[in-house]
Amino acid sequence: MEPDPDDPHLQLPRVWWQGQTRHEDVDAVVREEPLEIRIGGTPVAVVMRTPGHDHELALGFLATEGVVDDPASVMSVRHCTVVDDPAAENNVVQATLRPSVQVDWARLRRNLYASSSCGICGKASIDQVMVRCEPIDDDTRVGVQWLHALPDRLRAAQAVFTRTGGLHAAGLFVAEGEALVVREDVGRHNAVDKVVGWALERGRLPLSGHVLMVSGRVSYEITQKAVAAGIPMIAAVSAPSSLAIDLAARAGLTLAAFVRGDRLSVYTRPERIVA
Amino acid sequence: MEPDPDDPHLQLPRVWWQGQTRHEDVDAVVREEPLEIRIGGTPVAVVMRTPGHDHELALGFLATEGVVDDPASVMSVRHCTVVDDPAAENNVVQATLRPSVQVDWARLRRNLYASSSCGICGKASIDQVMVRCEPIDDDTRVGVQWLHALPDRLRAAQAVFTRTGGLHAAGLFVAEGEALVVREDVGRHNAVDKVVGWALERGRLPLSGHVLMVSGRVSYEITQKAVAAGIPMIAAVSAPSSLAIDLAARAGLTLAAFVRGDRLSVYTRPERIVA
Repeated sequence: MEPDPDDPHLQLPRVWWQGQTRHEDVDAVVREEPLEIRIGGTPVAVVMRTPGHDHELALGFLATEGVVDDPASVMSVRHCTVVDDPAAENNVVQATLRPSVQVDWARLRRNLYASSSCGICGKASIDQVMVRCEPIDDDTRVGVQWLHALPDRLRAAQAVFTRTGGLHAAGLFVAEGEALVVREDVGRHNAVDKVVGWALERGRLPLSGHVLMVSGRVSYEITQKAVAAGIPMIAAVSAPSSLAIDLAARAGLTLAAFVRGDRLSVYTRPERIVA
Repeated sequence: MEPDPDDPHLQLPRVWWQGQTRHEDVDAVVREEPLEIRIGGTPVAVVMRTPGHDHELALGFLATEGVVDDPASVMSVRHCTVVDDPAAENNVVQATLRPSVQVDWARLRRNLYASSSCGICGKASIDQVMVRCEPIDDDTRVGVQWLHALPDRLRAAQAVFTRTGGLHAAGLFVAEGEALVVREDVGRHNAVDKVVGWALERGRLPLSGHVLMVSGRVSYEITQKAVAAGIPMIAAVSAPSSLAIDLAARAGLTLAAFVRGDRLSVYTRPERIVA
């Protein structure tokens, strides 16, 4: 049977050991494949991603890079079937934008200059984000008990992780409400882009009053994507980095981390979390 | 007191909650800052990294990108102090290579085209690695009991993780032996580059007979770096991706994952692991 190109995992043979005893079986492994994102015919990025929700990934990428913020700007998003190598057919997505959309190619290339970084000191990186993003002015308040329960809600929606242990998840919640969408990927930044792309398609950007929950750590890159999408709060299961905290402070975003069991830590704008 | 520029963490204020009770304290947070890597005066990449061991990171990056494989090719590696912004002074490293070293700029740029990917299907990505890397021909054998104990050895050497919970670790071991070097970073690929750079400085490439242990997952990118360094075995605490397994199979590298407690899984070349 041909594998489903949108199935996020593959069945692969493995040897496994318990103590000194050797076994053999077949194991579900998370898929990783490159995706080239094009604007019109022009390639703008290749990301290593888990296949599935590729259109959302491309749209979210374009939104968090500041290219589009409105579904009306996007005429179509399609997998390219006219590629040199048939094996690449599912790995190229082309977004066609309305002619009225001005793409700042120079800025886009600068942003993508390895690892999405754009400055050579943290402050310059943050300055560059804040030039194109509004500081978040959002009086959302959430109860701490609701936040304590978020990891369970995220995990409940994570179908793949339970099978492979290999995926990062990102979920978008209305404050004090249920998950609107949960996406998974081998790359944590891709999971966030898929969620943002989902919201862009529905005309929901900027995401005032929403909370982004991520299954892992919070880096600068994740925070930059949340700021670009106008999200006022990130909740993460694991640790934040210093630059993520610096950017969150500057942008007015609430950064909660180590959200586990009945504990959590808040590094910026703690007033949005109440007892 | 001025913070030590090589200290991998910062002390930052936070609010923390247990249940509905609010506390305040100061917490150690892992540092994340951009590092620009230059060959001569030419910038080739910006990576988001944890400051410290920057010269190893730059050298390892150049080694795993196929630019150098011999310490004699490198005349010097220095932090640039002549940068426009004084805040960037610790965030630019310049490697000066011997004039005899031919840098294939076109290939380097292609490799770095976002996320270090270079093809638009997995097979093309792997083809591109195998064009410049030898398949690994290495008859190293390790006992499974030694592998079961590797995570404890890695963790014992991880000074920072225990304080911040925010770092990935990579360790290089001689098969059946002790850790030669362990490095940590917010980026798992940077931790591997630091370890490879350490080995390059000592003229130890290619790393036949060595085992690379990583604290997290095994992506394509991590596997590509191990193959470029000639390492015959990766052991990881968490899950591998499908493309990591494909590349390991093609390159002849043993990929062991989920190395936890008395269990581990082997996806490629299991014959190097014996009871």
